[in-house]
Amino acid sequence: MKKLINQIDTLLSDSLEGFALAHHHLIELHRHPYFIRRLQPTRQGKVALISGGGSGHEPLHIGFVGTGMLDAACPGQIFTSPTPDQMLAAATAVENGGGVLFIVKNYAGDVMNFEIAAEMLDCPQASVLVADDVALPKNHSIGRRGIAGTLIMEKILGAAAERGIDLTGCVALANQLNQSMASMGLALTSCTVPALGQPTFNLAADEIEMGVGIHGEAGRHRQLLTEANLMIEQLMEAIVAEFNSPINPQSVLLHVNGYGATPLMELYLVYQIAFNYLQQRGIKVIRSLVGNYTTALDMAGCSITVCILNQTLIELWDDPVKTAHLHW
Amino acid sequence: MKKLINQIDTLLSDSLEGFALAHHHLIELHRHPYFIRRLQPTRQGKVALISGGGSGHEPLHIGFVGTGMLDAACPGQIFTSPTPDQMLAAATAVENGGGVLFIVKNYAGDVMNFEIAAEMLDCPQASVLVADDVALPKNHSIGRRGIAGTLIMEKILGAAAERGIDLTGCVALANQLNQSMASMGLALTSCTVPALGQPTFNLAADEIEMGVGIHGEAGRHRQLLTEANLMIEQLMEAIVAEFNSPINPQSVLLHVNGYGATPLMELYLVYQIAFNYLQQRGIKVIRSLVGNYTTALDMAGCSITVCILNQTLIELWDDPVKTAHLHW
Repeated sequence: MKKLINQIDTLLSDSLEGFALAHHHLIELHRHPYFIRRLQPTRQGKVALISGGGSGHEPLHIGFVGTGMLDAACPGQIFTSPTPDQMLAAATAVENGGGVLFIVKNYAGDVMNFEIAAEMLDCPQASVLVADDVALPKNHSIGRRGIAGTLIMEKILGAAAERGIDLTGCVALANQLNQSMASMGLALTSCTVPALGQPTFNLAADEIEMGVGIHGEAGRHRQLLTEANLMIEQLMEAIVAEFNSPINPQSVLLHVNGYGATPLMELYLVYQIAFNYLQQRGIKVIRSLVGNYTTALDMAGCSITVCILNQTLIELWDDPVKTAHLHW
Repeated sequence: MKKLINQIDTLLSDSLEGFALAHHHLIELHRHPYFIRRLQPTRQGKVALISGGGSGHEPLHIGFVGTGMLDAACPGQIFTSPTPDQMLAAATAVENGGGVLFIVKNYAGDVMNFEIAAEMLDCPQASVLVADDVALPKNHSIGRRGIAGTLIMEKILGAAAERGIDLTGCVALANQLNQSMASMGLALTSCTVPALGQPTFNLAADEIEMGVGIHGEAGRHRQLLTEANLMIEQLMEAIVAEFNSPINPQSVLLHVNGYGATPLMELYLVYQIAFNYLQQRGIKVIRSLVGNYTTALDMAGCSITVCILNQTLIELWDDPVKTAHLHW
């Protein structure tokens, strides 16, 4: 294992301190327990948006705290859920009369801990579960995993909350968004969790994991590495199959996300393939996002998310956002 | 070699097409020969800023074309200089009465080809050489390499040109900036150039390359992988040694750049170490940039750049910028 760290035990704290130093004009780090909150005061009555999850997926979630997106993010240890006291402390700190909305990726630990926090929280609150990964079947026993669609949920709801849409309205929007997006990814290599010190899984030199999770979970199957056209078309087929078939001529957001170790050059190549796939089917890509946003430490590979847009969603996506790693 | 590509021959063109599709509201791709130019019209008389170099360092340079930064970028094949016809075509396309300023990283091929283009160009022009990598001695026969300081040069000069500073003023600013910044990096792993199909160099499992170049060039020496504190302090010592010693209490920009495969979590940990190193010596970090900006394909590792700021440089750094991968 080759990593730029001191001790495994202090990796998270060292990293959070660096993040707080680098972005002190945007966010503030709370230390006992850990959460990152936005610095800019919010309007009284604004819904407070809070997310969190295991670390190792940066910039998700801490890089998306700021104006027009999250009010706070709770970082757990690497690939480990944050604890309810973090969520409770974050919620108490940022709640401002509009109630709290938790954005939770669908993993057992995250779901449980956010539920505990919600029960202990003494203000109006709701939770949104993100489960955009179509690698697993819809009726999977623990549900589908939340992956790169989470960023889209955070951006859209962040804009909605900033506009003054109330808790009920935000939940309705989240439910609509959950129906409108689908993601799937593939891995060329495993990630290496520092505490484990070795790759989470092993792939042969000519093998990929189709449908991999963002912690290196098994996907649909393993297959031979082949040309990008074929592999990306498989992802697109799985994603498009989720929507009404045939998709009406629709306008979509296309998000190509790198898992951490895949060069931007390859991600743009992937974007071209995905764009053409949609265009050939009469689906119009009107918004895009390409880069390493929901990572899995040092995994090589990518995910693709397609989100069907309507006028409201377009406007919310376009609304200004000012965070450490999403800014327009 | 595991990469998301179709054929090696079409990697650059596939990727550029994807980039152009994803950012069609900001930039335009010219195909014969290749260059990326900004879409937003410039004010008559503005200095036209053009950079370029081998591909594989994305988002440098194409990701920095837009308002307040580059007017055009010329992408060569991977780790290969662009050709004079690209530079000439780009210059002819974007020149708008203020002359052309080429920003060139100090590599033999780039220098030669930009010189040829400059000789053929029929308008006022000048070139700025970036040679911020202090891994090599100052009197090295072919000079020092240009690495992550290039982004700072492009941002500052981009802002200056946007403000209407003329060619002579931009060159003076560039000379000042060249005296004010120093960078050095280290590699944990090699990158793999697709056409080569195997790592450029080999490091043992417990070894790093101290002072590595952004194409995998040898650095100062190899040494054992140790804790980040020690390795980063070595980089900082080399960088700080470049400036007047002792550095007066100065305000600096601290840029921690990932080489492509190093997680953001580690880069922020590196940032903390570098920040503390400077603070302990009375040097104040007042601006920061952390992320994968000047990459070496899939290399793991990072570079650090320190740039001494004065009021003019602070204001130019803070000026608005709107490009695909730098935006504020």
